[in-house]
Amino acid sequence: MPAGEFDLIAAINERLPPPGPRVKLASGDDAAVVEPRAASAITVDAVVDGVHFNLDSFGARSAGRKALAAALSDLAAMGASQGEAYAVVGAPADLADDELLAIADGLAEVAERESVSIAGGDLVSSPVLIISITGIGYEPGGARLVTRAGARPRDVLLVTGDLGGAAAALELLDGAEPAGLPADQRDSLLARQLNPRPRLREGRAVAAAGARAMIDISDGLGADAAHIAEASECRLEIDLGKVPLAPGTEAVAGGHRGALELAAAGGEDYELLLALPREKLEEATRAVAEAGSKLTEIGYATEGHGVALRLPEGGELEARGFDQRRGSLSGSG
Amino acid sequence: MPAGEFDLIAAINERLPPPGPRVKLASGDDAAVVEPRAASAITVDAVVDGVHFNLDSFGARSAGRKALAAALSDLAAMGASQGEAYAVVGAPADLADDELLAIADGLAEVAERESVSIAGGDLVSSPVLIISITGIGYEPGGARLVTRAGARPRDVLLVTGDLGGAAAALELLDGAEPAGLPADQRDSLLARQLNPRPRLREGRAVAAAGARAMIDISDGLGADAAHIAEASECRLEIDLGKVPLAPGTEAVAGGHRGALELAAAGGEDYELLLALPREKLEEATRAVAEAGSKLTEIGYATEGHGVALRLPEGGELEARGFDQRRGSLSGSG
Repeated sequence: MPAGEFDLIAAINERLPPPGPRVKLASGDDAAVVEPRAASAITVDAVVDGVHFNLDSFGARSAGRKALAAALSDLAAMGASQGEAYAVVGAPADLADDELLAIADGLAEVAERESVSIAGGDLVSSPVLIISITGIGYEPGGARLVTRAGARPRDVLLVTGDLGGAAAALELLDGAEPAGLPADQRDSLLARQLNPRPRLREGRAVAAAGARAMIDISDGLGADAAHIAEASECRLEIDLGKVPLAPGTEAVAGGHRGALELAAAGGEDYELLLALPREKLEEATRAVAEAGSKLTEIGYATEGHGVALRLPEGGELEARGFDQRRGSLSGSG
Repeated sequence: MPAGEFDLIAAINERLPPPGPRVKLASGDDAAVVEPRAASAITVDAVVDGVHFNLDSFGARSAGRKALAAALSDLAAMGASQGEAYAVVGAPADLADDELLAIADGLAEVAERESVSIAGGDLVSSPVLIISITGIGYEPGGARLVTRAGARPRDVLLVTGDLGGAAAALELLDGAEPAGLPADQRDSLLARQLNPRPRLREGRAVAAAGARAMIDISDGLGADAAHIAEASECRLEIDLGKVPLAPGTEAVAGGHRGALELAAAGGEDYELLLALPREKLEEATRAVAEAGSKLTEIGYATEGHGVALRLPEGGELEARGFDQRRGSLSGSG
């Protein structure tokens, strides 16, 4: 697309919401200029066609939504207030302009809903569609940013929302047609992939209520719990029988055990896993309910290391590692 | 590489320089935590194998160097103090671990040389090697960040260093063997691609000396001058006969006219183009010399719009647009 290059970028920019008050310069210069407050939380997160989404089955708008939501989920896991996002789009030469604009629409939809400024970006040629998001958030008033490192023995382990839905949605997108799955459950499962919701309000709510360690569930409950266990130098005991399953996950997985496996290893649910002193449980539960979600106790921290994923019928699931070639260099991910 | 995933990330992290004092948390959490000063300049910039570099001819280490240098060049063009960088690496499954570590070595080399913290990153699977860098800089003491928008009629136009070398280097990397090119010139031309230097000190020096508009020359002198002209709502008159050419560019281009075309349209020299009131010229020239480079007057701003690239023999070169499918969404690039 050599001819309409500049016009296309203008068309993309028109689709994005106007930048927030902290953004002093967000248009067509070498860099954006931002006047931040206090501490910043910064994350980079990329999604690649064929790896983290599938353009054919997702559609371009959903790819844009997922890319931004996944990065904002990292900010949610710090208990940060969302600030600005920057998008690098690597687009194949044969990707239609309409598709590129649909990606921008998806980014804009999430940015608007989540009150994030898209303050900059870069559009490059790439043989495969890749969307890399830099998300910047800020320490909210009255609470500290929450890392993975603060869990202590006897803390309770909690998750927001429901798990397993994102992995079940992948099977639906791959063509699975499970018997007895109501249409409304099918739709809400699909939304876990096509329109994931970062738990920003919930993250701030539990941070204010005293969460000591937190992570977003992007790699799977087992793998993400292992990140907390390692950073906090303690052991996490999780009772899978208590894990809240997204409605319809059992129908897709062909049973309860399969659904637990999706919840434990599937990832991409973008719910929050956190450790909290028990005396803060009531306050945190109320705060998350006010933020529009729910908090479920699924286990506790103890001395030692590693993660146990206990099955209701006895025995354990293995705490699986990364599903894909994917990990964090230093700070973010 | 499913098995050694975590070890590989640890090995990459070991190669990176330790984070600077502003970085409060830069290791293995959902996001990095940074305590910034005043205003931040933030840019995102991606390089893709086969588009912005060629892994076979560049080698992995040079790909890493170029990726980080290109992003830092955007901060130089704001006159910012460099702060932190975040790297997203999309790596093909068949890329050897050694190659990935060599990319990290290239990033580390530039980070160390330019005093930048690599505070976070993401490693994802991608069918093509892509390195996307988020660069964050800060308003230096005693000067404001310099945008593209401040040039005024009668300002002088200046460039740092020499132009044309990066485009000439591409021809050498493609196998050109020009007669009469001394080995030392060949080496310093190749370094323009394989080890480009962001002009961070020069950028701050001219910002402090009163630069009113500035851009880094990444798309080519003509295209980048057009960005200043458009943002500043004025016309730029450039005398190509005054443009300083990197030694050896004429030998590669087969003559002076060809060398001017490389300088005007080739891009990726990562020198700075700036507009300055004439009364500040002496101070700026001295400041850039102290920063280790040179400043050359190549034209002036006037009323009107657009850019004229005047040839020494009369006539004009066309101010070419983007060379590749590439551009900036909103703020940065």
